[in-house]
Amino acid sequence: MIALVGCGTVGGGIALLLTRDLPFLKEKTGLNVGLKYIVDINFDHAKEIGIPSNLFETDYNKVLNDPEVTIVIELVGGLTFAKDVVSKALIAKKNVVTANKALLANFGEELFGLARKNGVAIGFEASCAGGIPIVKTLTEGMAANKIDGVYGIVNGTCNYILTQMIDQGMSYADALKGAQAEGLAEADPTLDVNGMDSAHKISILGSLAFGYNCELSAVTTTGIEDIDIYDVSIGREMGYTIKLLAIAETYDNKVSLRVQPSFISDSHPLAKISGPFNGVSLYGHAVGHTMYYGRGAGALPTASAIGADVIAVAQGTQKIVFDSYKYWPDITEKPEYMALSDVESEFYLRLNVEDHVGVTATITKILAANSISISAIHQKSIRPKDARSKNIPIVILTHKTKCGNMDNAILELQNESRISKNIVSIPVIEEKEETIH
Amino acid sequence: MIALVGCGTVGGGIALLLTRDLPFLKEKTGLNVGLKYIVDINFDHAKEIGIPSNLFETDYNKVLNDPEVTIVIELVGGLTFAKDVVSKALIAKKNVVTANKALLANFGEELFGLARKNGVAIGFEASCAGGIPIVKTLTEGMAANKIDGVYGIVNGTCNYILTQMIDQGMSYADALKGAQAEGLAEADPTLDVNGMDSAHKISILGSLAFGYNCELSAVTTTGIEDIDIYDVSIGREMGYTIKLLAIAETYDNKVSLRVQPSFISDSHPLAKISGPFNGVSLYGHAVGHTMYYGRGAGALPTASAIGADVIAVAQGTQKIVFDSYKYWPDITEKPEYMALSDVESEFYLRLNVEDHVGVTATITKILAANSISISAIHQKSIRPKDARSKNIPIVILTHKTKCGNMDNAILELQNESRISKNIVSIPVIEEKEETIH
Repeated sequence: MIALVGCGTVGGGIALLLTRDLPFLKEKTGLNVGLKYIVDINFDHAKEIGIPSNLFETDYNKVLNDPEVTIVIELVGGLTFAKDVVSKALIAKKNVVTANKALLANFGEELFGLARKNGVAIGFEASCAGGIPIVKTLTEGMAANKIDGVYGIVNGTCNYILTQMIDQGMSYADALKGAQAEGLAEADPTLDVNGMDSAHKISILGSLAFGYNCELSAVTTTGIEDIDIYDVSIGREMGYTIKLLAIAETYDNKVSLRVQPSFISDSHPLAKISGPFNGVSLYGHAVGHTMYYGRGAGALPTASAIGADVIAVAQGTQKIVFDSYKYWPDITEKPEYMALSDVESEFYLRLNVEDHVGVTATITKILAANSISISAIHQKSIRPKDARSKNIPIVILTHKTKCGNMDNAILELQNESRISKNIVSIPVIEEKEETIH
Repeated sequence: MIALVGCGTVGGGIALLLTRDLPFLKEKTGLNVGLKYIVDINFDHAKEIGIPSNLFETDYNKVLNDPEVTIVIELVGGLTFAKDVVSKALIAKKNVVTANKALLANFGEELFGLARKNGVAIGFEASCAGGIPIVKTLTEGMAANKIDGVYGIVNGTCNYILTQMIDQGMSYADALKGAQAEGLAEADPTLDVNGMDSAHKISILGSLAFGYNCELSAVTTTGIEDIDIYDVSIGREMGYTIKLLAIAETYDNKVSLRVQPSFISDSHPLAKISGPFNGVSLYGHAVGHTMYYGRGAGALPTASAIGADVIAVAQGTQKIVFDSYKYWPDITEKPEYMALSDVESEFYLRLNVEDHVGVTATITKILAANSISISAIHQKSIRPKDARSKNIPIVILTHKTKCGNMDNAILELQNESRISKNIVSIPVIEEKEETIH
């Protein structure tokens, strides 16, 4: 039987699924995946959604000492208490199901090792991309592939905010307020909008994709807080949609991990992932490009992923997969990383200059000196709303260049007296080429 | 060890994966999934792609009598010989992996029963939507959901042809010729373009989705042979993309299965599935709308799905899933079907009339008498290229109505002397509403 620890919004969803829908689940799967305990200190939400109160328990030790409990679902979130809950469950030889991406990104190696030592498994489908079964897809559905790229829109809050900026022309600040009013952003949205939540997820997905222990500390992370609606609009005009992309890629045997606001071409399947939805593109050597779409958050969509894990653990398939495959972070090596400065990308560049005619030559000279070639250059007649000076915006699209070249070029451009220090550079990501072989 | 029966295009792909890529697969999965036999009567293709000739075998009985062989991959296609290969393997207590949708759609109940009786499993990921792991997603990833809708673009040949018509303005005949030249359509493309291949797949996916034995004979099937480029273009103007949709839906407890060319709104995630790609939307009661995208055919993409099955069978997870879940056609009941005439849909209707002003009243009267209300009506100034008379096309979009009403209305309209008998009606499918609950 099962114990659920933490009955907030997401906890309430899985509690509902494992009580109200239990007869259906039994009939469908042939398994008894009933709850025995719901551990929390406050049961207001659980009561509100009609969860039977005989399940409520405040003492976690009772769960740990109950041999009937074989699965602990951890949904308390955060790092400290959650780590304690999970570790104690594993040591008590109970399987764990968790949605806690921060926990696994920070302590995956330790916790998977603890699970292995105690002969149990960890299910974590809900940790990445909400209701999309992306963990099962990466580990099992794509099992016959060498994966060389994962491109994900894995944070619904950011995607909702960016979609509002794109579709409604809202500023970042207004779109964030709207997301908070809709319950799609926390009161403190920092971990979402600064890209850290996406970084957690891409370190987990990268580890599964490549069979390396991809460390959180190796993810170069930029959030969406500084995205200007002006650039979003100019991008739209040019056929690009802005998305916060989490990318894990291999170049030969080096791994690049990054989270970055990016322009993607409207024809890219990920460009259509709007609002709170998530989408993940996987590139395999045999299958080519596959893409997965669904809700990235919400009580019941997340419960769908947790429920699938509970069933897989109860059936025994999760344990087999955990014992058999060689891509869990406790048994894999750390990769050699590719520095972001060596990664190649096209760029969108916006400079604000005092006098257009005079400085164009300077700009093109500096770019050329840094091995950056220009694919398009526009002087925009409409200036950003918040432009404080009479500077004229110049938008440049570049061909592929190393990110390090761009960083150098920007430093040099910022040294020019007639160019404003505020230079916007956004990577332009074309659909990755399939290399089926 | 593994025996492969049938080494044509797809067989060559999995042969390559299980020989050339075997060291990688061993390292990744911890399993030995090496080939012991490749059974065929002609090994030209196998030789051409460099498969070791010591695997070649012409006598299938050798496979059946070899206790070392635990998995037989059937890729001979068709119904007669394939059924023989699969049945004999199951009776010899060997697990089977197959890409044969026709076989499972016609004989699934019998073959799954035979597998169960002999204590082995059947893997069939490659039977639906090529490289997309849709079977694993439906059976395991979505395990905690009541599925109430499957909408699929599951035939790459049709989707390629329709995409050429949409993007290049080609006629059906020219687009088909192009597809054949590209190797994306068979010399005899009948099973693809008449919708039967999609019908096979939706009967399999419907069975997994609903836990009913959804019979092939219950799929109402229309192909793409009669699609006129004129209607494709008019649809584009109105923001609709034509797709061959395979649909399995439940209404209360009744099941509707259908394959039909359909207009879908450009904002629907399936509208962007172009060329030879496949896409499948699943609607679950907890997860809401999820969508899956990837290559629907090709040697290596299909081998990706076959390889995942081989690994799951070798690991033992496939057997557990087969034994535990209750939605395999040998143990499920046949559903009550909903007649297509009772299914509601919006429609695109094109009539060719002799005299526009005079007949409009007649048309609207007949539609109203059949409970069909009009949402838009256009007289098009451009006539179809092949229009043989001076008839004027009138395009009508309707609100939702029962398909039976539309059938009746069309019969009555065809009886009118000033309306051509050639009336085009195409269902307009809006994105299905998510009913997360």
